[in-house]
This record gives sequence, structure tokens and C-alpha cells, in this order.
Amino acid sequence: MAYNLAPLQNLIEQFERMQGIGNKTAQRMAFYVLSLSESEADEFAKAITDAHSKIKQCKICCDLAEGELCPICQDSSRDKSVICVVQDSRDVVAIERTHEFKGLYHVLHGAISPMDNIGPEQIRIKELIARLGDGEVEEVIMATNPTVEGEATAMYISRLLKPMGIKVSRLAYGVPVGADLEYADEVTLSRALEGRSLI
Amino acid sequence: MAYNLAPLQNLIEQFERMQGIGNKTAQRMAFYVLSLSESEADEFAKAITDAHSKIKQCKICCDLAEGELCPICQDSSRDKSVICVVQDSRDVVAIERTHEFKGLYHVLHGAISPMDNIGPEQIRIKELIARLGDGEVEEVIMATNPTVEGEATAMYISRLLKPMGIKVSRLAYGVPVGADLEYADEVTLSRALEGRSLI
Repeated sequence: MAYNLAPLQNLIEQFERMQGIGNKTAQRMAFYVLSLSESEADEFAKAITDAHSKIKQCKICCDLAEGELCPICQDSSRDKSVICVVQDSRDVVAIERTHEFKGLYHVLHGAISPMDNIGPEQIRIKELIARLGDGEVEEVIMATNPTVEGEATAMYISRLLKPMGIKVSRLAYGVPVGADLEYADEVTLSRALEGRSLI
Repeated sequence: MAYNLAPLQNLIEQFERMQGIGNKTAQRMAFYVLSLSESEADEFAKAITDAHSKIKQCKICCDLAEGELCPICQDSSRDKSVICVVQDSRDVVAIERTHEFKGLYHVLHGAISPMDNIGPEQIRIKELIARLGDGEVEEVIMATNPTVEGEATAMYISRLLKPMGIKVSRLAYGVPVGADLEYADEVTLSRALEGRSLI
């Protein structure tokens, strides 16, 4: 049921626009807002406009940044000879969490998807190529999603980079650690077989 | 992992404060905000401050209202002889959805719960009693939640109202329509047995 209080209904609809938020959750969120004190509600609203106005894209890697450059591109201890290419800022966070990668990133902000009218020009491929001109980069690791679109994007970029003499690699496919083989899908299992290594 | 971009991390934390919103969802919500256009983000923020500043409590029933009175209390076609007492504004919406109840409501904004330091003074019982003075109300239906606190609140209010000569009733307990008996808990089942009717 829609509320006949316009400001409340409007707030519910704002929350509902977010992916994965249904009507019940949006209602609960709107009631949470009503339960806040005035200063808390103002702070909440300010957090939205602040994040939106202050967070920009890093001039180098296109990841999120508060100033011109993101913290990783500013960090002189990172290995500038390896760039890990991801679709999304959240992927950077996921890889950083492993503490295994010491190179730089490049965030494409999407993947090539003709179905959604997203071609190579709509994602940050041009910006990636521009970074490779000075010969400092030796390897580009493609860490796009293991989906049709992610694969296509990785293939597309790899074909652009190879003639430049840059090593292009891809994340390994296989069964997730801790998962039950029984539940692995056939494609993942056959990729895991293909990529098997001697022990 | 926390983001080292303060405005983003702050927004994520704002979303995380909502009940039932975990870190992953809060992150996704914050990225949704970043993906908005500037005017959309401003609109979102404004919806929060607007809802918070414009939505007040109805002077009569304590339900949410944009002006002095809620739409139901303003509606002269509603039956003023019956008041349905609920804990929360969302319960009003749920009952309205049945289209079965034509009386008025009273929203307590909580239930008596000594464990949480909520006594009869902390919820809108005084306001309910004040509505019953003019003798127009014949019946009060207790529709508090079927929990210990909801029950205790219903009992407490019923003891206050009975000496005033007002009929006090309670929602029926029983098995939910469409549910499987096998999965009904014993308390619900025994209440359903107690409340059985001839067919």
C-alpha cells in the first residue's frame, strides 16, 4: 500500500530505487529516518550530498578518489610495473583485502556489453591505454568478472595490449576454496580441471 | 574493509545504522548514491530532510500526519465509535490493506516492556484515554502484537478502559490462512483450538 503522506511515500520510493531494496525494506528505512533526531536526519542527508559531491574519479586509475588521485596511486610504495584491471571500485576493495597485490589498479567502470549498448568507448579503456605509453608497465592482470561480458572485455583489451609488448594475464578459474565440489557448476569444474597444477 | 575515502565511509556507516542493513548492502547503497546525477543525489537528500521535518504525529490518534491531523482522523466517513489500538504506524497500513475496518486508530508507538525501561508513560496511553472522555467511543479493539509485550500492553489498557464502560476486544489468535498446520507452533495451535468456532 502506498502511504497517503507525500513526503513519506517519496522517501520510500527513493529507497526503493536502490537495487535489491524491496518495498518492505524501503518502508523500514523510511521509518528509521522518521525515528531520527533532527540533527541526525540532517547529518544523514548531508552524508549523501557530501559523498556525491566530494568523491570523484582518480585521474590515473579511474578508481574513486577524494582529490585528484586515489590513495593507491598516491602511494609510492606500490609496484608501478603491474596494473590489475577491474570492472568496479568494489573489486579493488575485494582484491586489496587479500593483501596479496602490491601493484596499481585500473577501474573500467563496466564491461563491454553490446546487449546493453556498452561498447569499448563507454568504459575506461582509452584511459588504460594512455597509462601504458611510458614503458613502465610490464604486466596487465585482467580481473574482470568471470561472466560473458567480463570475458569479452578481457579478450578485447588483451588484443589491444599484446602488440604493445605488454604481458597480459587473467585471474585463475577454479573451485572456490572451502566450497563443496558437489555444488560447483560444470563450467567452473571443467575450468578447474583445465587449470590443474601438479602437487 | 573500510574505505579510506572519508565521505564514502561515512555514507556507508549512515546506511549501516539502519536495522537489518549489513555492510555489503550499505556499500551497495553508497555506490548507488555515487552513481546518481547531482540533481538526483540532492533530491534523495532532500527526501530525507523533508520526510523528517514534514511528518508529525496526528493530534488525535498519534499516527503519522503531514498537518495537524492524519487522513483517517480527517475522514468524516469513518466510524467514530470504534478505535483500533496498534503499536506502530505500519500496523495501521497493514489493517487498512484488509479494507475491513472502518473505524479510527490509535497508535501507541511501542508496547510496555519493563526490560527496555518502557512503562505505560512512555507510550501514547494517556492520549488514548483522553479520546474516550466524550462517550462517543463504544469499542476499543486491541491489535497490539501477539508478543509478551503486546499482550501485557493490551491487558494493561483493557483494565483501564473496562471501568469506563467501554467494550474492549482483542484480535483473534489462530493459524494463519494458507499456512501449513504442521509448521504452526504449539502456542498458536492451542490458541486456535481454544478459539475454535462451529461450522
